[in-house]
Amino acid sequence: MEQGFAATTVPEITARAGLTTRTFFRHFADKREVFFAGDEIPEVARRLLAEAPADLDPVTLLEQGLRQVAAARFDGRREEIRQRRAVILAEPALRERDAQKRDDLVRVVRPALVARGVEAVEAALLAELTVVVLHVAHDTWLDAPVEQPMAEVVAACFTRLRGVLSPGPARIV
Amino acid sequence: MEQGFAATTVPEITARAGLTTRTFFRHFADKREVFFAGDEIPEVARRLLAEAPADLDPVTLLEQGLRQVAAARFDGRREEIRQRRAVILAEPALRERDAQKRDDLVRVVRPALVARGVEAVEAALLAELTVVVLHVAHDTWLDAPVEQPMAEVVAACFTRLRGVLSPGPARIV
Repeated sequence: MEQGFAATTVPEITARAGLTTRTFFRHFADKREVFFAGDEIPEVARRLLAEAPADLDPVTLLEQGLRQVAAARFDGRREEIRQRRAVILAEPALRERDAQKRDDLVRVVRPALVARGVEAVEAALLAELTVVVLHVAHDTWLDAPVEQPMAEVVAACFTRLRGVLSPGPARIV
Repeated sequence: MEQGFAATTVPEITARAGLTTRTFFRHFADKREVFFAGDEIPEVARRLLAEAPADLDPVTLLEQGLRQVAAARFDGRREEIRQRRAVILAEPALRERDAQKRDDLVRVVRPALVARGVEAVEAALLAELTVVVLHVAHDTWLDAPVEQPMAEVVAACFTRLRGVLSPGPARIV
């Protein structure tokens, strides 16, 4: 935030944190990695998918999972997450890594849905949809004038998708 | 395909094409750009969205637009597009540019939906959903044992999304 991501060196980071660069590199491959450390959404998703009741329909499962992740990781941290987004958007190397994280989540959700008996194309669509809802909810939650519970923003996204995609006569918007 | 994207130089490309490198660089900033030349899906999307009847509901509009793009750009080119995918997947710089193209499409569709009166969060969700359907349909179409019309694959993706997201009692899959 003070001097930009690109202009900040690992020795500067470790000096501020009171660590040696040797300790730093024992934990992180590069300074990009320290920025994404603790971002274990794919691992949480893997566990939630493995533990969910086998008869839960996939959309309910994904919505419940996203709501749990949302409540645990976002609420009360809006200013920090807003700063983080600004730093990511300003730096191509971070944007690329962030996009990679989205792909990582698709690669966790898709086979987990297939393992639950969801047809392959449906599993691909739903895995990508999960990432889309997380992404749109994330920006909506950050940009709202007052902070709402992130789980409510996730639920509102699913409600909108259900409404706009429900079969029936053409809707005039 | 013969020697890999990274190992192929601009002089090699221009020699094979019977051009000077000067002509090459008059048209393309680098060899990555020549790979994505003619990939004008965002421009086609912009035109389709501008020309569509104002009372068409947004999902029907997006489905019809994707079906038109699909028929015009994919059918009959499966072998070429399959080779292209293999080259892109093998080269990080091309994967990154390909992801950028997906973002470009979101950035065209989203404001066009807002201009048609679609609420902002719904427009964001539908713009991302359009890219998801194009992406999943693209892979489904490439991986099918026999070539189907791409427009049918797109329509099947929308049918699946409508089915899985339709409100009502929980579906057991």
